[in-house]
Amino acid sequence: MKKLIICIFLVTTSCYFASAQHPSFLFTQDEVNEIRAEKGKVPAFDRTISETLGAADAALKSPISVPVPIDGGGGVVHEQHKSNYYAMFHCGIAYQLTGDKKYAIYVADMLEAYAKLYPTLGFHPLHLSPVPGRLFWQTLNESVWLVHASIAYDCIYNALSSKQRTNIEKNLFIPMADFIMNGMGDNHINNETFNKMHNHATWATAAVGMIGFAMDRLDYVNKALYGSDETGKQGGFIRQMDYLFSPDGYFTEGAYYQRYAIWPFVIFAQCIEHKMPELKIFKYRNNILKKALATLIQLSYQGEFFHINDALEKGLSAQELVYAVDILYNADPSDKSLLSVAKEYQQSYLPTIGGFRVARDIEREEANPIIYRSGIFHDGRKGEQGGIGVIRSRDSKLNSALTLKATSHGLSHGHFDKLTIAYYDNGNEILPDYGASRFLNIEAKDEGHYTLENQSFAKQTIAHNTLVVDENSNFDGDIKQSSLYHSDIVYSDFMKNDFQVIVARDTNAYHGIEMKRTMAYVTTSFLQYPLILDVLQTNAENAHQYDYPLWYNGHFVSLNFPYTKAINELRPFGSQNGYQHLWLEAWGQNSNSNTSSFTFFKGNRFYTISTATTPQTELKMLRLGANDPKYNLKNATAILVREKNKKNHTFATSIETHGNYDVVRETSDNLASSCEEVKVVIDTISYTAVKATYKGGHSVLLCLCNIDNNKEKTHSLSIEGINYTWNGRCGIFMK
Amino acid sequence: MKKLIICIFLVTTSCYFASAQHPSFLFTQDEVNEIRAEKGKVPAFDRTISETLGAADAALKSPISVPVPIDGGGGVVHEQHKSNYYAMFHCGIAYQLTGDKKYAIYVADMLEAYAKLYPTLGFHPLHLSPVPGRLFWQTLNESVWLVHASIAYDCIYNALSSKQRTNIEKNLFIPMADFIMNGMGDNHINNETFNKMHNHATWATAAVGMIGFAMDRLDYVNKALYGSDETGKQGGFIRQMDYLFSPDGYFTEGAYYQRYAIWPFVIFAQCIEHKMPELKIFKYRNNILKKALATLIQLSYQGEFFHINDALEKGLSAQELVYAVDILYNADPSDKSLLSVAKEYQQSYLPTIGGFRVARDIEREEANPIIYRSGIFHDGRKGEQGGIGVIRSRDSKLNSALTLKATSHGLSHGHFDKLTIAYYDNGNEILPDYGASRFLNIEAKDEGHYTLENQSFAKQTIAHNTLVVDENSNFDGDIKQSSLYHSDIVYSDFMKNDFQVIVARDTNAYHGIEMKRTMAYVTTSFLQYPLILDVLQTNAENAHQYDYPLWYNGHFVSLNFPYTKAINELRPFGSQNGYQHLWLEAWGQNSNSNTSSFTFFKGNRFYTISTATTPQTELKMLRLGANDPKYNLKNATAILVREKNKKNHTFATSIETHGNYDVVRETSDNLASSCEEVKVVIDTISYTAVKATYKGGHSVLLCLCNIDNNKEKTHSLSIEGINYTWNGRCGIFMK
Repeated sequence: MKKLIICIFLVTTSCYFASAQHPSFLFTQDEVNEIRAEKGKVPAFDRTISETLGAADAALKSPISVPVPIDGGGGVVHEQHKSNYYAMFHCGIAYQLTGDKKYAIYVADMLEAYAKLYPTLGFHPLHLSPVPGRLFWQTLNESVWLVHASIAYDCIYNALSSKQRTNIEKNLFIPMADFIMNGMGDNHINNETFNKMHNHATWATAAVGMIGFAMDRLDYVNKALYGSDETGKQGGFIRQMDYLFSPDGYFTEGAYYQRYAIWPFVIFAQCIEHKMPELKIFKYRNNILKKALATLIQLSYQGEFFHINDALEKGLSAQELVYAVDILYNADPSDKSLLSVAKEYQQSYLPTIGGFRVARDIEREEANPIIYRSGIFHDGRKGEQGGIGVIRSRDSKLNSALTLKATSHGLSHGHFDKLTIAYYDNGNEILPDYGASRFLNIEAKDEGHYTLENQSFAKQTIAHNTLVVDENSNFDGDIKQSSLYHSDIVYSDFMKNDFQVIVARDTNAYHGIEMKRTMAYVTTSFLQYPLILDVLQTNAENAHQYDYPLWYNGHFVSLNFPYTKAINELRPFGSQNGYQHLWLEAWGQNSNSNTSSFTFFKGNRFYTISTATTPQTELKMLRLGANDPKYNLKNATAILVREKNKKNHTFATSIETHGNYDVVRETSDNLASSCEEVKVVIDTISYTAVKATYKGGHSVLLCLCNIDNNKEKTHSLSIEGINYTWNGRCGIFMK
Repeated sequence: MKKLIICIFLVTTSCYFASAQHPSFLFTQDEVNEIRAEKGKVPAFDRTISETLGAADAALKSPISVPVPIDGGGGVVHEQHKSNYYAMFHCGIAYQLTGDKKYAIYVADMLEAYAKLYPTLGFHPLHLSPVPGRLFWQTLNESVWLVHASIAYDCIYNALSSKQRTNIEKNLFIPMADFIMNGMGDNHINNETFNKMHNHATWATAAVGMIGFAMDRLDYVNKALYGSDETGKQGGFIRQMDYLFSPDGYFTEGAYYQRYAIWPFVIFAQCIEHKMPELKIFKYRNNILKKALATLIQLSYQGEFFHINDALEKGLSAQELVYAVDILYNADPSDKSLLSVAKEYQQSYLPTIGGFRVARDIEREEANPIIYRSGIFHDGRKGEQGGIGVIRSRDSKLNSALTLKATSHGLSHGHFDKLTIAYYDNGNEILPDYGASRFLNIEAKDEGHYTLENQSFAKQTIAHNTLVVDENSNFDGDIKQSSLYHSDIVYSDFMKNDFQVIVARDTNAYHGIEMKRTMAYVTTSFLQYPLILDVLQTNAENAHQYDYPLWYNGHFVSLNFPYTKAINELRPFGSQNGYQHLWLEAWGQNSNSNTSSFTFFKGNRFYTISTATTPQTELKMLRLGANDPKYNLKNATAILVREKNKKNHTFATSIETHGNYDVVRETSDNLASSCEEVKVVIDTISYTAVKATYKGGHSVLLCLCNIDNNKEKTHSLSIEGINYTWNGRCGIFMK
C-alpha cells in the first residue's frame, strides 16, 4: 500500500507547477543551496544539521499516530500531537536539506492522517480553557501546531500531488485556519482572540498568515496582517507590532512571557520578509523586534529571566530565543553580542541560513561580550506606563543585579506587586521573586496548569518584596482595578561614579496612600561589596498597618535581637491575601538597638539586612507552606518588618553583601556584618535623609528630595551640624 | 631595626653548616632543582608556582601579626594564626623556589614573634575542647600549625643563624612539641591523645616527628614513629598505619574524616620517605596509603564524599586530596586515574615534584578515566567489622550510586544508623543522608562547632534512611554500647548481568531484634532506568512499632491514596530521639490498594517510592525544623511508613527512577510511575519473595534465601504455580 502511494506521487509531482515559490518560510531555495554548499565548514552548524536529520530519522522510525484528543498538557495524546508537529517540522526541513523523499512522504502521510481526523472533531473534550481548541484543549496550542505544520508543508509542497494538496488543504488547513480565525458553530471567541492585541493573537495570526502564504491564499494573509476586517485598525500582526511592545521593546507581561510572545513574531516576520520583502518587516517601528530581543537579554540574570509576574525558570537557552537570535541576527548582523548569547546559553542553532551564519560568525570569533547595563525598561505602548528599573554592578565580575518593578499590571499574568524589588548576586537569587506557582507539563499537578496557589499566593502582594498595607494586596487583588493604573519610575541615575539609583512611585495600589521607593546601589571604599540602600516611604491620609517583607534565599545565621522561635507548634501568620500560606516561624522586637539586623548566607557569601526599627516594631520570620493541601508551594522564607498604626512611615534598610566562605578550604572572613546603625535622620514632606553607619567610623548618608525630580536642581540639608549639598533627587555622602 | 637583622643574618648564615640536609620535607634540593629547571614547560604547574609565589608575596605585604589567643574557629585571632601558618608555608616554599631571601626573612621574623609569644601562653582561654591547646582552642589545630611551620622551617633552615635557630627551637618548637606530646602542668591529656589510635594522634605525631626531623632530634622522631615509649606497641605513626585503616583502606569515621585523616599521613610519609627511605613507608602494609586514597575516591559521588556520619560538603577538590593525589602519584605513578581526579576536581597542584609530575602527565594526556566500581569497603582493622556497600550503575552515563552502611560505630563522628541506605542519581542526592549539623567556621553558629542538633537530630537513627524501632535510636543512642558492635555485609553480588545486590544484617542495634536489608539494583527491559528494590526485614521476640523513613530531596508530586495535610497547624511528630525535630506535615492510610506510592521530582527526573502496605499501615510526610530554636536545621523532607505491633515484618519497596522533564523545552514523558503493585508473596524463616509489578504486564520477582549465603547453593521456590530456581542468596526473575 505504501509503495503504491510512492509511485503515484512520483509520477504526479513532476507535472505540477506551483504558482508561488517553495520553500520560502524559514528559508528560500537559494538559502537551502547555500546551506548545502557550506556543509562541513562549520562543525557546530553541521551538528545542528545532524541533530535535525537525527530527529527526522527518529520520527520516521515510529509509526504515524494521530489519536483522538482526550487530555491536557503533559497527557499522552496531547504530547503525541505536540511531538507530531515537531516530527513534521524536522522531516520537512530534512527533505529540503537532503532531497530524500522519504521525509516528504512521512509529512504527507501524517498530514493526510490529520486531514482524516480533523473534520471529525468538535471542541476538545477537556473544558479547561475559555478559548477551547479542537486538537488541543486550547486554541493557542492549535495555532502553534499550525505554524509548525505550515513550515513543514512549505518544505514538502513541491513533493505533493495536487490531489494530496487539495485533500490536506480542504480537510485540514482551511478548516483549522477558519477555526483559529473565526471559531466554530456559535462559539466565536476565537475571532475575538484573533483580533486582540495579545500574544495568543500573535500565534493565531502567524498560523493563519503562514498557512495562507503556503496555500497562496492572500485573503488569509491579509486578515493575518491586518485583522479579520483587513483594515489594520483593530487587529492583525502589524498592529500587534505597534501595540504589544513598548518603545523600549518591553512586553507588558514580563520577560518570561515575552520569550513566548517573541517566537511567533520572529517566525512570521521571517516568512513575511521572504514573501513580502517590500514590507521591510524587520525595520518596522524602528526595529522593534530587534529591540524586543535586546530587552529580553537585558531582563535576564545568568541566562535566566528575572522572575517578574507568572515566570517559571526559563531563559536565554529557550528555543524561542534560538529563533529570535538566529532570525534577527540574520536580518541585521550588526549586534555581535547576539553571538555570545548563542555561544554561552544556546549552543544550538536553527537549521536555517540564520543559524548557519550565527554558528559561522561565532567560529570566526566575531562574538562580542554581552553588556548588561543598568536602565529603565518602560512599559506601555508609548512607554508611558512605568517600567522595570534594573541596576547592574559596573564591575561585571561582581555579577549582581537589582530590579525595581513599577509597571502596569501585565494582563492576566501580572502580579499585584507594585514597587517590588529583587536582588541577584554571585549566581544566586538572594532576595527572590517567587514567580508563578505552576508545574508546567506535570499532569499530576493540576494538569500542568497554574495551581490554585498561583492566585492565592504567588500573585498576592505579600509574595513579593514590597509593602503590604493592612494585610491586603494592591487594588484589593482586583485585576480590573489594577489594570487601570500603573506605577512610575520617577527618577533614575546610573551615571555617578559611586552610586546608581532608581526611584519609583505609586499612588493607586492602596487607596489614599502614596508609596515611594528609592533603591540605591552604592560603591564604598570600606565595604567588601557594593551596598544596597532601600528606602520605602508611605504617606497616607489615615493610620495603617505596614508590612515590609523581604523574601530571602539562604540559611538563617543570626538576628541581633532576642527572638522566639515556634518550637512545638506552627500557625499561619494570617488568614487571607496570601498570609494564610505563611507559617509564623519566629518573632521578636528589638529593645536593644534602633537597628534590627538579620544575617543569612547563600553559596560562599553572607548577606545582612539591617533596618531602622523601634521597640514597637514587630519582626517576623516566615516560611511558606501553610494551607497548601496539595504540596503545591515551594519552600521559601522571609523576614517581615511590621509597623502598626502609622500614617507616614519610612522603612530604611541597608542590605550588605559580605564575607568569603569556603567550606572545602575551611577559610572564612568578614562573616559578620559591618553595619552598626540605620537611621532616618530627616523625614519631612520635602526631604528624607537616611544614615547608615558601618564599622570603623564609616557611614553612608542618602539624602532624598521627595518632591522634585529635576536632575540639575541643587538641594542642601544641614544634618548633625554639617551642610550637605547635591544636585537632583538623590545625593550620597560617604565618610 | 629590620635592616640590622638582615645584615647580621647575612653574615652569620654563611658560617653555619647543617648536620642534616635541608630542604628534605616536601622536597629535596635535587627536586627543587628539577622544579626550577622545568619552569615554563607545563603551564598548569607554572600557574601553581605563580599562585604559591603570589600567596607568599601577599603575605609579605601584611605586617606580621601574632596576637594573643582569644577566640575559636572563625574568630579573627584564630583565623590569623591559621593564615600565619599558611603564610610561613608559602614563604618557605617561595624561598626554595626563588632563592630570594626576603621570604626567608619573613618566616624567620614570624617564627621569632611566635618564639616570643609562645612561652607566655597558658591554656587557651576558651574552654571548648577536652584537649585544649595553647595557641588554639584545641591541641589539634596546634599540631596542624606545627606541621606547616616545620615545613617552612625546613625550607629556610639554611638561611637562619644558629642564634636564630636556637631561639626559635628553644622557645617555640621544643615547648610546642613537648606540649603536643606530653601536655602541660598536671594536664597530660595530650600524651593520651598522642599515643592513641586516632586521627588527632596522626597530626600530633606528624607535628612532633617533622619538627624532630627539622631540628635533627631523633628522640622526637622515634617517639613520633613508635609512640612516646618508643616501642611501637602502644602508639606512634607506624602503628596508626596498621590500625587506622581497614585492609581495604577504609577509615572507620567515614570518607569525610578520612579526607582529613589522610593529610598528615601523606605529609609525614613524604618526609619519612626523604629522611628514612629505608622504611619504605609508601609500601608499608601492602601500600595502605595508596589503598586509602583509592577508597576515598570510590566513596564519592560527583566529586563529593558520601554523607556518611558527621560529613559536610567536601570531596575530591579538598586540599587534603591534592596532597594525597600528588604525593601518592609521585610515590607510585602506576594508577593513571589519579590524574583524572586532579584534572576533573582539583585543577591545582602541590608546589612539589609530585605536583609537577601530576600536572605534566595530565598534559601528556596520560590520564585514565576514574572507574567507579561497585564493591564492599570493609571496616575494622582486620576488615572484620562490617563495611559500606556501594552499587554503581554499570553504564557510567547513568551516573547513579547506592550505598548501604553496615559498619562499626565510627568513633565520635559515627551516627546511629545501622543498615541505612542512600541513593544518588543524575547529579543529585535523591534519598540523602543528612550528614552533620554544623556550620564550619561560622562563628555566629555555635562558633563553627557541631550544633546541639547534631546530637539531638543528625546522629539519631530517624535522621537516616533506615529502620527505627519504637521511636528509639540504635543502641538507645549510647555510643559506648554502639562502639561494642558492628553490622555485617552478609552477601553481595556485583557480577550478574541484570542485577547487583547487597545484603546486610544487624542483631545488636535493637535488643532482641534481627534486621536484614537487601538492596537490589535491577536493570530491566521495560523500565526507563534501573530499578531499586529494597527489602528490610525484622525478626523480633516481642511486638514493636517499626518506622521505615525515606528522606527525599525533591518536590512532592503525588501520593496514590487519600491524605490529610496539616493546614492550619503543624505539630512535632514525636518528643525525643530526633522525632521532636520533625513536623508532621501530612498523613494517611491506604485502603484503596495494597501498595502505597509516592512520587517526587528532582532536576529533570521523577522518582516513585512504592511500598507494600495494609489499611493499618500509617503513612506520614515529615519536614525537618521543629524544636530548633536557633535555626540550625536545614530544610529536609521524608516519607515514613509505620507498622505497629509487629514482631516480624518485611518492608518491601520499589524505588523507580523515571521521566524526562525539560521545562525550557516544555517536553515531558514518563512522568507517571509504572509500578502497579509491590507484594511480599512468600515470607518464611528460610525464604522471602517480593514481587513488584509494572505496567504492560511486567514484573520483577526478588527471591531471597534468608539463612544461607553460599553463592553456589541452589534454591527453589514455587510461586503462583511456577517454580523458580536460583543460586546464592538472591535470585531475580523478570517478566
